[in-house]
Amino acid sequence: MITNNKQNFEIITGGITAPKGFQAAGKHIGIKKAKKDFAIIYSQVPALASGVFTKNIVKAPPLYWCEKLINSGKKIQAIGINSGNANACTGEKGYENAVECAKLLAYSLNISEESVLVTSTGVIGVYLPMDVMRKGIVETAKTISSDRDSAIDCAMAIMTTDTFTKEITVKLDIDGVEVKIAGIAKGSGMIHPNMATMLNFITTDVNIEKELLDKAFKSNIDDSFNMITVDGETSTNDMAIILANGCANNEIINKEDENYVKFKNALEFVLKYLAKSIVKDGEGATKMIECHIKGAKNKQDARVLCKAILNSNLVKTAFFGQDANWGRIISAMGATCLDFDPTKAKITFISNQGEITLFENGAPIAFDEDFAFKILSENEIKVIVELQDGDAKTIGWGSDLTYDYVKINAEYRS
Amino acid sequence: MITNNKQNFEIITGGITAPKGFQAAGKHIGIKKAKKDFAIIYSQVPALASGVFTKNIVKAPPLYWCEKLINSGKKIQAIGINSGNANACTGEKGYENAVECAKLLAYSLNISEESVLVTSTGVIGVYLPMDVMRKGIVETAKTISSDRDSAIDCAMAIMTTDTFTKEITVKLDIDGVEVKIAGIAKGSGMIHPNMATMLNFITTDVNIEKELLDKAFKSNIDDSFNMITVDGETSTNDMAIILANGCANNEIINKEDENYVKFKNALEFVLKYLAKSIVKDGEGATKMIECHIKGAKNKQDARVLCKAILNSNLVKTAFFGQDANWGRIISAMGATCLDFDPTKAKITFISNQGEITLFENGAPIAFDEDFAFKILSENEIKVIVELQDGDAKTIGWGSDLTYDYVKINAEYRS
Repeated sequence: MITNNKQNFEIITGGITAPKGFQAAGKHIGIKKAKKDFAIIYSQVPALASGVFTKNIVKAPPLYWCEKLINSGKKIQAIGINSGNANACTGEKGYENAVECAKLLAYSLNISEESVLVTSTGVIGVYLPMDVMRKGIVETAKTISSDRDSAIDCAMAIMTTDTFTKEITVKLDIDGVEVKIAGIAKGSGMIHPNMATMLNFITTDVNIEKELLDKAFKSNIDDSFNMITVDGETSTNDMAIILANGCANNEIINKEDENYVKFKNALEFVLKYLAKSIVKDGEGATKMIECHIKGAKNKQDARVLCKAILNSNLVKTAFFGQDANWGRIISAMGATCLDFDPTKAKITFISNQGEITLFENGAPIAFDEDFAFKILSENEIKVIVELQDGDAKTIGWGSDLTYDYVKINAEYRS
Repeated sequence: MITNNKQNFEIITGGITAPKGFQAAGKHIGIKKAKKDFAIIYSQVPALASGVFTKNIVKAPPLYWCEKLINSGKKIQAIGINSGNANACTGEKGYENAVECAKLLAYSLNISEESVLVTSTGVIGVYLPMDVMRKGIVETAKTISSDRDSAIDCAMAIMTTDTFTKEITVKLDIDGVEVKIAGIAKGSGMIHPNMATMLNFITTDVNIEKELLDKAFKSNIDDSFNMITVDGETSTNDMAIILANGCANNEIINKEDENYVKFKNALEFVLKYLAKSIVKDGEGATKMIECHIKGAKNKQDARVLCKAILNSNLVKTAFFGQDANWGRIISAMGATCLDFDPTKAKITFISNQGEITLFENGAPIAFDEDFAFKILSENEIKVIVELQDGDAKTIGWGSDLTYDYVKINAEYRS
C-alpha cells in the first residue's frame, strides 16, 4: 500500500467494485474464441454519470445511445461492454443491435433501459452476433458480484490486444468519511485497427453534485487521456465514463471547496495512471516517452507541440533505436508551423541513468553519444523541451515505434 | 520513347542537361565516405527562377538565402547542392557557411553571387565541413558539362538514403519550336531524420514570362509534391526549384493561351512523375498507394481526407500486410473531424489483379477475402473513396509502413 500524503489519497487494492454499492462481472460468451468478452459494471443505486466520447466523426452506433443518455442527464445503473466486435460502421442495424443489448441488460438486471449504457470494442464493420449476445447478456447478468474476482473478470473482459489488465483504486478521506475511486481501462493503441479503441470506466461512491462531477472529470480528461498517443489515431469507439453513486454518504460536495479539490486530485491520479498504463501497453512498445513542454506561448500550442513530437514516426523509431536524435524532435515541432522560436529552444533527455542536454539556443551541443545511448536504454524516458515563448506548459505520454507495431498491425486479420 | 499524343509531349532520355543551355556536375568531395556528395546545376545564361520551400518553421539556413533571392525576383544561374549534411539547426554560423558556399561557387563559375542558390541535405545539426566544401566547390565547378554523364552524376550526388536516381525529361512543341523540361529529385521520406529532405530541381529552356512560370510551377506543386507522403513529416530542408532560361527561343509565352497550357501540362507530368518516384523509393516501402477522393465538399477537404488515409500508420501497415482493412480507412477519415457523411461513403480497391468494393452506404459489403488479398498483392494499388458531399476531388500517393521503415529509422545513426 502506497501512501501519498501530499495528495491526501492512498492507492489500495480492490478494483472497479471497491467503491461502495458497485458490482461487476466478466464472462466468455462466445464473441471471441476463448477469452472473456462481455463485462458488466452495476451500481445498486442509480448513479450520476459523466462521459466523454470520441471526436471521430465516424462514431460506432452504441456511442449514440450512450451520448443520448449521458447528455440528457439520466442517472445510470449499469454498463454492458463487449470485446471482440466494435459494432462500428454497422449503420442503422448496428444501432438497433446496441439498443436491443441495452434493453436486454436492463431486463436481466430489472432496471430501467434508460439507465443502461452499452459499448463495444473489437473488429470494425461486422454486425454483432445477436444470438450470442442475447444468451450471453442474460447469463453474465446472473453473475454480478462485489467481490475482487468479479472486478478482475470485468477488467479482463474488456481487453482486446491488451497484454495486461489496467486497473487502479484509491481511497481518500472527505470530512472523516472514506470515499473510493476505482478505474479500469483498455487500449494498446488510440485505435486498434480492427481491434479498435480506448475505453475507460471509473466508479466512485462519492456524494457530489452533477455539475461538479462533470467539471472534475472533463478537466482531468484533457490532461490525461487526451495527452497520450500510441499511433496518433482516434478510434470510432473511444469513450470514458464515470459513475458516482453517492453510497459513501459523505456530506455532498456542492462547491469548489477543499473537498472538491481533494476529490479532483485523486481522480486526476486515477485517470493519469490509467492513461499511462495504456501507453505502456502500446502495441509493440518497448518504451514510454514522457514529453514535457515548458515556456510555450499558450496551453493549446504546448499540447500541439507535445503531440507532434510524440506522434512523429521518426522520433518514435529513434527512441526504439536508442538514438539521441534531437534533430527529429525540433523538426517535428517545426512541422506544426506554430509560431515558436527554435533559436531559443532547449532539449534535454532524462532517465534513471542520468540527464543530457542536446540542443540549446538554436544550435547543437556536443555530447557523449555513449552516455546518451545509456540514458535511452531505460524503459521510461523524459524529454524536456524548454521554449522561451511564454508560461504555458504541458505533459504528454507516448510510445516508441517498433518492428512489433508493424507486425501486430500488418498481420492482425490474417 | 513514349509518345503521349493526348498531352502533346514526349518522354525522352537526357536528364537535367537536356534543355538547351544547361550544364551540370556531380562529384565526391569528401562529406560522405565514398559516394558523390556535391552537385551543380548551371545555366549558360541567367534564368528565371521559381521556388517553393518547406513550411517547417525550423528552416535550414541555406533556405533563407535561396528564398531571399527567389522572392526578390533575381535571375539564377547556378545551384550548388551538397548531400551528407543538411546544414540544418546550425544557427547563424550555418547561414554564414551557406553564404560562403554561394560566394565560392559564384567565384568559381565567374557569375554574380546573387545568382547562385545553395542547398543541403543530410544529417541535421552538424556544421558543414568548410575545408572540404571550399576545396570541393572549386573542383566540382571545373567539371560542369552538358553531356549525359554529367546529368547522371548530378542526379546521383543529391541522393542520401535514396536507392535509385529520380529523373525525367520531356520535350514538347511550341509553335514548331522544340522545348524541353527536365527534372531530378531526391527523397525517400518527406523527411529523413537525419538524412533529411525532399529536393526537386527542374530545368527548362522554355521562353516564358516570370509570372506565368510561377503560376504553372506553384499550381502544379499542390497536386504533385504536396500530395505525396511517406511518413507525414515535412523536412527542415524541403524545396523545389525551376529554372527557365529561354534558350529554346520559342516566342515568349505571355498569356494563358494554348502554349501555356501545353507547357503547364508537360510540367505537371514531370512533377508528378518525380513525386511518385519519391514515394516508390519511400523508406522501406514495398507498395505505392494511389488514393483518389471523389465527391468531397471542397478541394481542401478532399486533400485533408486523402492525406489522413495515406498518413495513417494503421492503413499503411494494413497495406503492408495485404489486408483489405477498409475499417482503418473510414476511421482515419473520421478522425479528421471534417464534416462528411460516412453513411454515403464507398470504398473500392483496384490493382492489376482486379477491383473490389468493400464498403458502401455506411455499411460493409461481404467480400471474397482471397480475391481482396490477391488485389493487394500488387506493388501499386488504387484506393477509391467516393463521397456524395460535393464535386471536389484529389489524388495523392503514399507508401506502406514496413519492418524496413522501422529498421532504417531506428538504426540510422548507430
